[in-house]
Amino acid sequence: MATPEGVAADDTRRQIMEATFRALSEHGYSDLRVRDIGAEFEKSRTLIHYHFDGKHDLIASFLEYVIEQYEEPEADDPADPWATLSARLDQCLFGPDVGDFDHWERMTVYHELFAHARHDERHRAVFTDHYEQLRGNLTAVIEAGIEEGAFRKVDAESLAQLLTDVIHAARARRISLGHEDAPDQAREAVDAFVLDTLEPEN
Amino acid sequence: MATPEGVAADDTRRQIMEATFRALSEHGYSDLRVRDIGAEFEKSRTLIHYHFDGKHDLIASFLEYVIEQYEEPEADDPADPWATLSARLDQCLFGPDVGDFDHWERMTVYHELFAHARHDERHRAVFTDHYEQLRGNLTAVIEAGIEEGAFRKVDAESLAQLLTDVIHAARARRISLGHEDAPDQAREAVDAFVLDTLEPEN
Repeated sequence: MATPEGVAADDTRRQIMEATFRALSEHGYSDLRVRDIGAEFEKSRTLIHYHFDGKHDLIASFLEYVIEQYEEPEADDPADPWATLSARLDQCLFGPDVGDFDHWERMTVYHELFAHARHDERHRAVFTDHYEQLRGNLTAVIEAGIEEGAFRKVDAESLAQLLTDVIHAARARRISLGHEDAPDQAREAVDAFVLDTLEPEN
Repeated sequence: MATPEGVAADDTRRQIMEATFRALSEHGYSDLRVRDIGAEFEKSRTLIHYHFDGKHDLIASFLEYVIEQYEEPEADDPADPWATLSARLDQCLFGPDVGDFDHWERMTVYHELFAHARHDERHRAVFTDHYEQLRGNLTAVIEAGIEEGAFRKVDAESLAQLLTDVIHAARARRISLGHEDAPDQAREAVDAFVLDTLEPEN
């Protein structure tokens, strides 16, 4: 059972994460200093230093925090693998439908940190874990569909990797180049050229 | 006809671009100052200021310079659309085979600048032009194949956009996360799940 102290610490951690999000959105990653996060944080900045060992440690935790928010999958209808796959693709491309949670502001920060990940082994590990989680979720959906005979037998992991790459590129193009229609274009192209591969042979 | 002065100016421009490449590789974009480029440049730094109006102007020209180096398409065999398409995909995924020209070092700089493009309208325009050029090259190959009856009639631009996105994501994954096999995986998945779409119906 969570103690009052535990709840308070969780609350502080969440507030630090939200302050990090605001500071990253404003300053970008390269110019970010812990003091910028402190300026967005309502409590004492010493609490940030108490919880985290510098900027890189804090950002690694922040990445995990952002990723956790995307973890809860939509309720799947296991009876319809096509609908399940479609809902997963939409969620990845267009974001979860959860009120004031701004998918694209968070994705912008995510993609900026992704581009810097080659400079930090721990960040790279977090992104690789997340990549494998996204690919794994899609692999599971495809394998379930094959199991039920709704999909043709294919290399589910390879197809899931292709879809994960397409999703990533469409988001990057929207964020970096301002191509607002990139996710829609990606979805249409996947429907037209990729998903056919799952149609069972008569 | 190029005058001796014109040749000298071209040579200086090329040397500034190569100095920019070395400085970007060493310092990254965010921390880059014109003086870092000057330190990599054999001639006087005042020449850089003579040719370019600050860091953003210089980087926009640098982007155009990097992109130009990828423009020359391989000699295509117009008789075989499948071989032409395959060669294009390989060139985009694995880089041109041109001796000491290091594809991945240049791609690393390209992708880092891509991630920053949302902050600079001119950089964004250069990347969008390049995206359209890559997609356009693939669209032309697909349309030529349809024309000859080697490919089934599809929306060539939409398919070219899907392939361009997959190429971009595989490169980003290799560069940012160190997934060395990402281009090979992408190529295998495209062969397995996408190119079938071009097989003519009986």
